Amino acid sequence: MSAQPELTIQGWGPAGSRVAHVADGGDRLELTADASLKQALPKAARKHLSRELGWTPRHTPPVPVADIALAASRLPEDVRVALVGLLGAENVRDDRESRLRRTGGKSYLDLVRRRSGDASDAPDAVLTPADTEQTAAVLALCSAHGVVVVPFGGGTSVVGGLSGADADDRPVVVVDLGRMSAVKALDVPSSLVTVGPGMRGPALEEALSTDGLTLGHLPQSWEFATLGGYAATRSAGQSSTGVGRFDDLVAGLTLATPVGVLELGSPPASAAGPDLLGLALGSEGSLGVITELRLRVRPTPRTTEYEGWSTRSWAAGLAALQRLARHDLLPDVVRLSDPDETRANLLLSSSAGARALRGALRARRHGEGCLLVLGWEGLPTIVAARKRAASSLLREDGASRLGTRVGEAWRAGRFSAPYLRDQLLDHGLLVETLETAATWSALPTVYDAVRRALRDSLGGRDSRPLVMTHLSHGYATGASLYVTVLADRDDALPLQQWLGAKRAATDALLAAGGTLTHHHAVGADHRPWMEQEVGALGVDVLRAVKDRLDPRGICNPGVLLPG
Amino acid sequence: MSAQPELTIQGWGPAGSRVAHVADGGDRLELTADASLKQALPKAARKHLSRELGWTPRHTPPVPVADIALAASRLPEDVRVALVGLLGAENVRDDRESRLRRTGGKSYLDLVRRRSGDASDAPDAVLTPADTEQTAAVLALCSAHGVVVVPFGGGTSVVGGLSGADADDRPVVVVDLGRMSAVKALDVPSSLVTVGPGMRGPALEEALSTDGLTLGHLPQSWEFATLGGYAATRSAGQSSTGVGRFDDLVAGLTLATPVGVLELGSPPASAAGPDLLGLALGSEGSLGVITELRLRVRPTPRTTEYEGWSTRSWAAGLAALQRLARHDLLPDVVRLSDPDETRANLLLSSSAGARALRGALRARRHGEGCLLVLGWEGLPTIVAARKRAASSLLREDGASRLGTRVGEAWRAGRFSAPYLRDQLLDHGLLVETLETAATWSALPTVYDAVRRALRDSLGGRDSRPLVMTHLSHGYATGASLYVTVLADRDDALPLQQWLGAKRAATDALLAAGGTLTHHHAVGADHRPWMEQEVGALGVDVLRAVKDRLDPRGICNPGVLLPG
Repeated sequence: MSAQPELTIQGWGPAGSRVAHVADGGDRLELTADASLKQALPKAARKHLSRELGWTPRHTPPVPVADIALAASRLPEDVRVALVGLLGAENVRDDRESRLRRTGGKSYLDLVRRRSGDASDAPDAVLTPADTEQTAAVLALCSAHGVVVVPFGGGTSVVGGLSGADADDRPVVVVDLGRMSAVKALDVPSSLVTVGPGMRGPALEEALSTDGLTLGHLPQSWEFATLGGYAATRSAGQSSTGVGRFDDLVAGLTLATPVGVLELGSPPASAAGPDLLGLALGSEGSLGVITELRLRVRPTPRTTEYEGWSTRSWAAGLAALQRLARHDLLPDVVRLSDPDETRANLLLSSSAGARALRGALRARRHGEGCLLVLGWEGLPTIVAARKRAASSLLREDGASRLGTRVGEAWRAGRFSAPYLRDQLLDHGLLVETLETAATWSALPTVYDAVRRALRDSLGGRDSRPLVMTHLSHGYATGASLYVTVLADRDDALPLQQWLGAKRAATDALLAAGGTLTHHHAVGADHRPWMEQEVGALGVDVLRAVKDRLDPRGICNPGVLLPG
Repeated sequence: MSAQPELTIQGWGPAGSRVAHVADGGDRLELTADASLKQALPKAARKHLSRELGWTPRHTPPVPVADIALAASRLPEDVRVALVGLLGAENVRDDRESRLRRTGGKSYLDLVRRRSGDASDAPDAVLTPADTEQTAAVLALCSAHGVVVVPFGGGTSVVGGLSGADADDRPVVVVDLGRMSAVKALDVPSSLVTVGPGMRGPALEEALSTDGLTLGHLPQSWEFATLGGYAATRSAGQSSTGVGRFDDLVAGLTLATPVGVLELGSPPASAAGPDLLGLALGSEGSLGVITELRLRVRPTPRTTEYEGWSTRSWAAGLAALQRLARHDLLPDVVRLSDPDETRANLLLSSSAGARALRGALRARRHGEGCLLVLGWEGLPTIVAARKRAASSLLREDGASRLGTRVGEAWRAGRFSAPYLRDQLLDHGLLVETLETAATWSALPTVYDAVRRALRDSLGGRDSRPLVMTHLSHGYATGASLYVTVLADRDDALPLQQWLGAKRAATDALLAAGGTLTHHHAVGADHRPWMEQEVGALGVDVLRAVKDRLDPRGICNPGVLLPG
């Protein structure tokens, strides 16, 4: 329905692409499963993983898309007719393709379900309103008829944000924002652009580039995620240390709710009462649908430099970055891989650069060392001064500069991980990520606790998981930790295997002082812990806001607030 | 009750100081009214003001403090006894001095009332709880007994934030936070300090300085305002362009409410649902009392450089600063005075520096020019690079550098305006300030609209007001405007004179696209416009939050939300 490419149903990548074709079981290319794995992983990596994990590579392909079970739409006919009256028949769809493409998100749990042929969480219909008024009218109508509404942007949630689960088992419609994806206004002097929520990063960056401007928000999901989704989930891009979290880029937004429309935000800043805009950010569809955004843009940086460093150990790396943070010397992109991730990164890459890096680390006796990628952006003279000051502190703390090739290699592959995941899923692996954030003082404890929990939960007699962590998104007060887990999949009970590990890891990170989520959001997956995160009274406050704006509880009831 | 100096009852400055003695009518020094004015204003300034405003200097002193009328306390005896049981008798006071010192704030309206002997808005008692538990217990008790609670920090509100007005005319107690004013913890690696809400900036800066750290929040009220007050009102310090608004410095806080205690904030950042911390910031006591704060600190800057510039005109100055802002080149302190403020600043100062500056402006044909003060802080090499890049853009835009003396002169007098105000009030003048913020695109219109409204409202046959404006607090998307108004006082109806002007200015700035307040907060004075600022549904959302946390409506009911 949108001019922007859609995601494949059972994995990552644009529908109709090579990888997607394999995953969809559609117009198959002549690519055997074995060739696919060899293409994805160099031999050393396959051997390493096999040995580390106790994993035997095997072919575990998804069922053909045609075999995915889909129940008949439960949308009552009178509601359907009323919605057609509002939006036109072409914007109220309940065909198989429309519903399957808007079923769930892209978490490991989502993919396992979709690959096994399960679409029991599919919406009953897909609506595509044209603007704020139509969206508000849809919400009022659905509220009156007791129909659940799930907003759908790029469909890239990795926390069950699109689950549509409802305690009362009411019919569910998706409001797809694909028709609201244009630039509506650009105020260059004020560095503000007004956009539709269904717009994606690449399209916005292209539109801005003609004016020499950029948004600069680059999460791993950048190719498919939408601007409205970033706002609804409090996203953080890879350059967040420099340009800020997505929260920081939102100067205002329009939120359509079942009881009316809220216009929020007073750029540049206001002291007129509590921050209502901050209630819409991170509301994950539970209060309504974001229908317009005013975003802060900036001139395209004159210089962009990525470089690699190595630190002697994880502890030394943390200490060095903490010092940079305290002195306001963090670069715009900062990413410190722990020894496990550093080793895996080198093994997963067959490039000459990776071989050279391995040698360099050994020569520096950083064999148990950590790879640090730094990215600098801005005016050349200021970047140079910042780099000089930061480099001096890093060297004092024992770090070694590896040069730009390592940095550029990371940058070139910054969006590739989700593609690789599909190929690993095809071969008997569990692959998932989780993330948190903590103060600099608490980070080492949180790191240890999460690793121990995941290893204890996923380890068996002959197997143990590979737990790879990196620090990213640096702040003066702390940073986030991003954990990637690989393990031999329990083919009999894959969902339960991960749910147990996730539960253990989340309990552990909260107990150690981490936050429930730094940028993936709450969704369905984290809601059992929301009360622990914000307190019972905090949940009550959120519920009071929801009750006021969504009195019948139709707005994405399966996420955020404990059921 | 606090070890920190208290404000004088009828004006600014520490109780017992020289100026305060004159104002209080207390232990008078031998300083005649005429001498006081001559001391405050050089002759040229008196002449200029007299001519501009149609003002005849006259002696209009406050009534002696002893003559201020104070009604008997209305606190019911059973409540008083219960409060004494909670806090001890020494922390439940209803003596004249305790109540008068916590009556209202320091707006022009407050001062006019207090100077005329009116303390009809005095609280019935003053409570000083020791900690969060005691404060929560006080709130629960007052809620049960229908007693209004007004939190009191430094008492520096300029928007009627301490009015205590209540539609049901219930008894009012002030919760003075003076006993909760210590540093409780310092986490140097995480750049976080935990403090009591009654602590003031000078005490915190002194405590931090031993670790080479600073908070860096310096509003004009710095000598007396409290950290809890900054959070409750969303303050912005003079260095906000560099260190951020106070909002940006709050990593977490504890809010005691009538129904329980909220612990808010997850440093460094979280995506676990909407920002509840942002609901407490700017809540102005309407949801409860802030009883603890975790604040972000930073190393004391190695370099601090203030410099003066001049721009050819207000429009040229705005354009130049907008360009700096867009390119992320704004200094840490930025302050552009319009021609009226520039001229007045020069006249109000009798220093050699001011004379030199007048000459310099004339020589540069900036006779109608604007004074621009820039402050730079940080590492010398990075400051140098930023200054070079910014200076180059400023010169391209026609600005001239005046040197460091002008900048340092501004810095030296940064807290002096409220002291001067008292002396002008003693001599028949209306003196008040107001402020707003707008996007760079809207700023020129807002500026014109406010000036016109104030001139129309305050101008008479033989008089016109002096309306002086400066831009400060620069952001990528806009900036704030701070307006100081001087006019010949209507001695018969001084309150009505200002209320009319304030209404006209506020209507005008909102219509032109400004925000209701950038850093003074809403208080009682701005609440009639809150619905226009955030919409009826926005007000409803805030009311839903208040109803949940303060079901009997005892928390500072006279502020923020429309009555």
